[in-house]
Amino acid sequence: MDRYISVKDLEDGALELLPKAVRDYYKSGATEEYTLAENRRAFQRLRIRPKCMIGVLNYNLSTTVLGETVTMPVGISPTAMQRMAHPDGEVANVKAAEAAGVIYTLSTIATSSIEEVAEAAPNAIKWFQLYISYDRQITKELVLRAEKAGYKALALTVDTPLFGIRRADIRNKFSLPTHWRLANFDDLSSTKIHDAGEGSGLNNYTDGLFDKTLTWDEIKWLKSITKLPIVAKGILRGDDAVKAVEAGCAGILVSNHGARQLDGVPATIEALPEIVDAVKNYNVEVFMDGGVTTGTDVYKALALGAKMVFVGRPALWGLAVGAQEGVQHMLRIFRNELECTLQIAGTPTVADITKDMVRHESAYSRL
Amino acid sequence: MDRYISVKDLEDGALELLPKAVRDYYKSGATEEYTLAENRRAFQRLRIRPKCMIGVLNYNLSTTVLGETVTMPVGISPTAMQRMAHPDGEVANVKAAEAAGVIYTLSTIATSSIEEVAEAAPNAIKWFQLYISYDRQITKELVLRAEKAGYKALALTVDTPLFGIRRADIRNKFSLPTHWRLANFDDLSSTKIHDAGEGSGLNNYTDGLFDKTLTWDEIKWLKSITKLPIVAKGILRGDDAVKAVEAGCAGILVSNHGARQLDGVPATIEALPEIVDAVKNYNVEVFMDGGVTTGTDVYKALALGAKMVFVGRPALWGLAVGAQEGVQHMLRIFRNELECTLQIAGTPTVADITKDMVRHESAYSRL
Amino acid sequence: MDRYISVKDLEDGALELLPKAVRDYYKSGATEEYTLAENRRAFQRLRIRPKCMIGVLNYNLSTTVLGETVTMPVGISPTAMQRMAHPDGEVANVKAAEAAGVIYTLSTIATSSIEEVAEAAPNAIKWFQLYISYDRQITKELVLRAEKAGYKALALTVDTPLFGIRRADIRNKFSLPTHWRLANFDDLSSTKIHDAGEGSGLNNYTDGLFDKTLTWDEIKWLKSITKLPIVAKGILRGDDAVKAVEAGCAGILVSNHGARQLDGVPATIEALPEIVDAVKNYNVEVFMDGGVTTGTDVYKALALGAKMVFVGRPALWGLAVGAQEGVQHMLRIFRNELECTLQIAGTPTVADITKDMVRHESAYSRL
Amino acid sequence: MDRYISVKDLEDGALELLPKAVRDYYKSGATEEYTLAENRRAFQRLRIRPKCMIGVLNYNLSTTVLGETVTMPVGISPTAMQRMAHPDGEVANVKAAEAAGVIYTLSTIATSSIEEVAEAAPNAIKWFQLYISYDRQITKELVLRAEKAGYKALALTVDTPLFGIRRADIRNKFSLPTHWRLANFDDLSSTKIHDAGEGSGLNNYTDGLFDKTLTWDEIKWLKSITKLPIVAKGILRGDDAVKAVEAGCAGILVSNHGARQLDGVPATIEALPEIVDAVKNYNVEVFMDGGVTTGTDVYKALALGAKMVFVGRPALWGLAVGAQEGVQHMLRIFRNELECTLQIAGTPTVADITKDMVRHESAYSRL
Ligand SMILES: Cc1cc2nc3c(=O)[nH]c(=O)nc-3n(C[C@H](O)[C@H](O)[C@H](O)COP(=O)(O)O)c2cc1C
Ligand SMILES: Cc1cc2nc3c(=O)[nH]c(=O)nc-3n(C[C@H](O)[C@H](O)[C@H](O)COP(=O)(O)O)c2cc1C
Ligand SMILES: Cc1cc2nc3c(=O)[nH]c(=O)nc-3n(C[C@H](O)[C@H](O)[C@H](O)COP(=O)(O)O)c2cc1C
Ligand SMILES: Cc1cc2nc3c(=O)[nH]c(=O)nc-3n(C[C@H](O)[C@H](O)[C@H](O)COP(=O)(O)O)c2cc1C
Repeated sequence: MDRYISVKDLEDGALELLPKAVRDYYKSGATEEYTLAENRRAFQRLRIRPKCMIGVLNYNLSTTVLGETVTMPVGISPTAMQRMAHPDGEVANVKAAEAAGVIYTLSTIATSSIEEVAEAAPNAIKWFQLYISYDRQITKELVLRAEKAGYKALALTVDTPLFGIRRADIRNKFSLPTHWRLANFDDLSSTKIHDAGEGSGLNNYTDGLFDKTLTWDEIKWLKSITKLPIVAKGILRGDDAVKAVEAGCAGILVSNHGARQLDGVPATIEALPEIVDAVKNYNVEVFMDGGVTTGTDVYKALALGAKMVFVGRPALWGLAVGAQEGVQHMLRIFRNELECTLQIAGTPTVADITKDMVRHESAYSRL
Repeated sequence: MDRYISVKDLEDGALELLPKAVRDYYKSGATEEYTLAENRRAFQRLRIRPKCMIGVLNYNLSTTVLGETVTMPVGISPTAMQRMAHPDGEVANVKAAEAAGVIYTLSTIATSSIEEVAEAAPNAIKWFQLYISYDRQITKELVLRAEKAGYKALALTVDTPLFGIRRADIRNKFSLPTHWRLANFDDLSSTKIHDAGEGSGLNNYTDGLFDKTLTWDEIKWLKSITKLPIVAKGILRGDDAVKAVEAGCAGILVSNHGARQLDGVPATIEALPEIVDAVKNYNVEVFMDGGVTTGTDVYKALALGAKMVFVGRPALWGLAVGAQEGVQHMLRIFRNELECTLQIAGTPTVADITKDMVRHESAYSRL
Repeated sequence: MDRYISVKDLEDGALELLPKAVRDYYKSGATEEYTLAENRRAFQRLRIRPKCMIGVLNYNLSTTVLGETVTMPVGISPTAMQRMAHPDGEVANVKAAEAAGVIYTLSTIATSSIEEVAEAAPNAIKWFQLYISYDRQITKELVLRAEKAGYKALALTVDTPLFGIRRADIRNKFSLPTHWRLANFDDLSSTKIHDAGEGSGLNNYTDGLFDKTLTWDEIKWLKSITKLPIVAKGILRGDDAVKAVEAGCAGILVSNHGARQLDGVPATIEALPEIVDAVKNYNVEVFMDGGVTTGTDVYKALALGAKMVFVGRPALWGLAVGAQEGVQHMLRIFRNELECTLQIAGTPTVADITKDMVRHESAYSRL
Repeated sequence: MDRYISVKDLEDGALELLPKAVRDYYKSGATEEYTLAENRRAFQRLRIRPKCMIGVLNYNLSTTVLGETVTMPVGISPTAMQRMAHPDGEVANVKAAEAAGVIYTLSTIATSSIEEVAEAAPNAIKWFQLYISYDRQITKELVLRAEKAGYKALALTVDTPLFGIRRADIRNKFSLPTHWRLANFDDLSSTKIHDAGEGSGLNNYTDGLFDKTLTWDEIKWLKSITKLPIVAKGILRGDDAVKAVEAGCAGILVSNHGARQLDGVPATIEALPEIVDAVKNYNVEVFMDGGVTTGTDVYKALALGAKMVFVGRPALWGLAVGAQEGVQHMLRIFRNELECTLQIAGTPTVADITKDMVRHESAYSRL
């Protein structure tokens, strides 16, 4: 593991190891992948303004998220079908999160079941990512299983009435390798995904599964069947954030789905301030994911008002390179970079990271 | 066709297939081709702001243009001499438009005649692009023939007192291959184009054909000879748009002629808002073309006030790669990308795409 | 000549033909050559806003400069030692200017004398570029000779208390090849330039020649010895332009000496508006040079208030490639591109090119 | 030496000569090295506005710094362990500074001792860079030794509670070659640095040495043990500058530690105006370092309010390439470029370089 110094190293290592179709599925963004690049570049347009001589007695990365304490403000976003990265898949991933004391979010479209994951890491703080099916019975069962298995929140993905266009997947006629299954569903439906037909096989399958007609009213129904707090995942506008909160969501996850849904949307770090501002008078936590690969990225998001950030692909790279140990190494890199950042920036605890710590580069063009 | 996933793929395929002189003629822009690149890049400076959970019941791409219903807000701009791309030329192109239910615009300088095109696709919504000749009799005949053949509008090109400088054409001494003719003219004049002389052969010919002394008063004369609505094609300024409307035009096509006339003019998507704003109190429809190659490009133009967009080169690439089927494939790609965009952006009908859906990147530099 | 379609073509051709030391001397800019690149790039940040259907009856490129009529608003800036480009040097250059009806400016540091040049092209509109020597007698003689030989103006270079640092020249220990002489001086002084010593030989020589202690008061002295109008060449600030005019200059040539003096100064097209604005209430003509290589560059400068532009290196490239005919070809390219621009932009005479015809790209970021 | 025309040449030469681990240690910046690149690029966004015809009688680069006269406003920043660049290390460096009449700053972590350096160059203006150890006795001794040896100021590094993450050093398991020692410390502690362990050996060592708990109150203690003026090195915010001054510092060195501490902080030339503005009503001198490699860089910093600039790496490159003579050559390049800049810009003395001489590029986007 030692030769992986940065998340970029893990990515490079993983891209070399993975078979083409899987590699493409993991790394792709929507159509021309402009937003995919912007998710990273937009961080570079922000400047951290370190404070000197503040007396770093004890630095402390821990924070609370929806009432749970995590050891650092970096969690793992849901990504589908993790066993393609490594046979241990979601199980290795959640164990790494447990060992590191951070949140793990399980995808609806996982290759390990809600229960498998819960048993593998009983002490991990687990969230369950939800896609709502046309058949509400299916959804209800998923939610009840997650609640029963000790998951702490539902991350309701609100940006996916259908999957975005990912050209490489279409070219590769990507589908789940036949030796894996969508573990949260009965075998019947979960095999459809193996048949690519035209375009990506995944799309054929999920087009049937996702309910496109959802509105914010659905939150009411969800709250009627579960006590779990609901996080709206995929918000990019202030007004939508307000709608989510007023509909009953306890958290907002600013996300563009890893730039996989619609090319040309804002980078998430660009959209974050608008959302933080829109909900500032509500009792709600704002998170973000998208393009986070360094400790300073995390820091910038926190300064702009995120309570925590999530990472999607970095966990896949860790998994591919070294199963549980690879994911733990990825988290260690973030922890190390973030510890360093907090101290050098002169804000030794997460609470110290005020908005004043970051400025947009354009502010420096005024002499 | 299946291996062409994007308009870019079609372009790459076509550029490989076409002979050099034709390829250069089709793809070139004026002088240094800075605006040619900007026509594409300027779209990247705009961000789509998707709305979540709006309940996509039925999405619908259809819209009306000058009273006619089209199946989607993407039409085909006039491009000269399409038989150089494929022997079926304009005929294949218009049939594709007919099959897809979109507008086809025939160039004055076509290698198929007004009547050939009309007969090939009687149910297509056809527009005729007009260059006005010094000899008004020639022009009058063209207009009457178009009206008689069932064309629905005249796209009067207003940005071409003479052709711009396209360096590759001069280098190639480009002229129409001798086995093709400018089908809308009697044989005599239409053969001049085969003689390159100095510079591009096309220029020699058209310099004689176009009337440089035109003013907006000409619209009055046009309206005296035809009932067809007139669309001013090639507007880049708000004040010109107002002049066009006050002169009697029913539509404005914001265009820089595919960046082929004058290098250094605004990208069309840059110029669009100024024009929409200038004519907002008039009863006129605003369209745009230039650099549109993805569904999100179309979407951005619609959000900024275009009623519809047109594409020029993409139809040539489709034609080169697969005749009618190639053009239909190109239109299918746009339809598919646009359907996806409408749904993910949370604006399932064209009417839902309000200005609020798009923001300039610079708006995101304010923290 | 026909294979040179653009000024860029001429440049490429010349760079291939010239020996390294000469090529480097001609093309170099100061130190890191950032401003050299910016002189070109800054033009790309400006957009031309063409007007349609204005009725191009007769276009006309001619204009007047300090009372003299020129056939187009493009003249030739002084560049030193033109015989290095071609044995015909300044003589070929001035003949080309004469044939084309444009201004030729002879450098003080020329390889052809004031008289040779005047005799070669008696009907050319000639300016003499002046460096003022510590020995005012030398300067006085130059001025009187120029006036007597029929030169129409003095371009007093005000940006050169000493030459800027051009790294390639130092590396090459550049000096004038021994078979050429500085033709405006007696043989004694003009041979010093052949001895490079440390650094560029040219610098050693000119450091002795230029009077660094000049102030604007010197204009008074100049006006006491000559009736020729004085153009201050090398202004980059509004306040300096005002000082020049108040000191008695009839023209301002906004120039950064082809980016050869100080790296990091504004591109000239950037600086132009400030200067035009500063002297708008004075009776003075403003010119510019620096990075002009296309007809649209000329057009943009005129729109921002320049009465005419000058080109330095393009004349050297023409000279290198084809002596007098090469320079004429260069001028033909400008004329052709400019004619085309005027017509397509809808401003058929130079007087029509108002400020409104050009906008900075940043204006297009407001939606 | 003559073949090194620019600081860039010296850098290229040095990078070729140095062994990989040393080269990487010297050139690296923190994590992704974005700020490292910005330290240079940010200078390019500033424009110098030269004044013409001001009468350059005598130019004069000398200035005073904390009461001492220096021959030019360029000094040498502290960089650790200079004997790795050349066996003569700090001794060669200080002698070059002495010969050139500029300030030399000795690092706490030097491979030559306070006394060695003082003896080698008794007439040099020497500053001592201070890291404060947990063991204040160690620090006190260093300070007293520096004062006794004739150092003129203490540069207290305030941006380093711990070292930033430099990936190449971790990869190289960088540590001080065993034949060198940290000369300012007794042998016991200074050998720890040779043992890399995990990560960079340097970090292991210094983590033990630096006191992270420092606050601005420490200045009081420092002032109680020494009369030397204290310069706070590493300030990037206006409010921190005010704190430093109010705590008793006589100078502020705007620095991001050569972009080695935290990636994503402002370029120093970006941060400078904020700091100059914040302390404008205090009696304090502001300096800057970071990315300065040309005479125009120095000039821009002076125009924005720096009293002097410092260079770190350029001295290492000079040292590597030619020991004392290499460093003197580096200083000569700066002096030469700066002399040229002062004269051409029309500000022959340092005091003439007012804020008005520089503008941000963005100011040129207003037409
Ligand atoms: C391969 C892959 C699969 C994903 N699958 C899901 C998913 O099943 N459900 C979901 O809500 N988000 C999914 N996402 C989006 C992630 O939750 C997250 O928003 C995104 O990866 C964050 O961007 P990053 O990868 O740059 O960290 C997926 C992302 C990737 C890259
Ligand atoms: C090869 C070619 C030929 C064209 N011929 C004509 C024409 O005959 N008449 C006309 O009005 N516009 C003509 N145009 C301009 C197009 O109508 C349209 O404005 C432009 O192609 C749109 O840009 P796009 O190619 O990026 O989609 C031509 C464009 C191209 C590329
Ligand atoms: C090789 C060369 C020599 C020059 N010699 C002189 C000169 O002798 N006197 C002068 O005032 N300007 C001189 N200049 C500056 C030019 O007059 C003019 O300002 C500059 O070349 C314009 O920029 P351009 O080359 O991009 O057109 C010289 C420029 C070059 C490139
Ligand atoms: C190799 C190296 C070692 C350094 N060591 C120290 C040091 O020991 N103490 C310190 O305060 N700064 C140190 N610095 C920072 C420099 O003092 C200075 O701030 C920086 O090098 C300026 O940027 P420049 O290298 O671009 O000129 C070091 C920098 C480098 C490159």
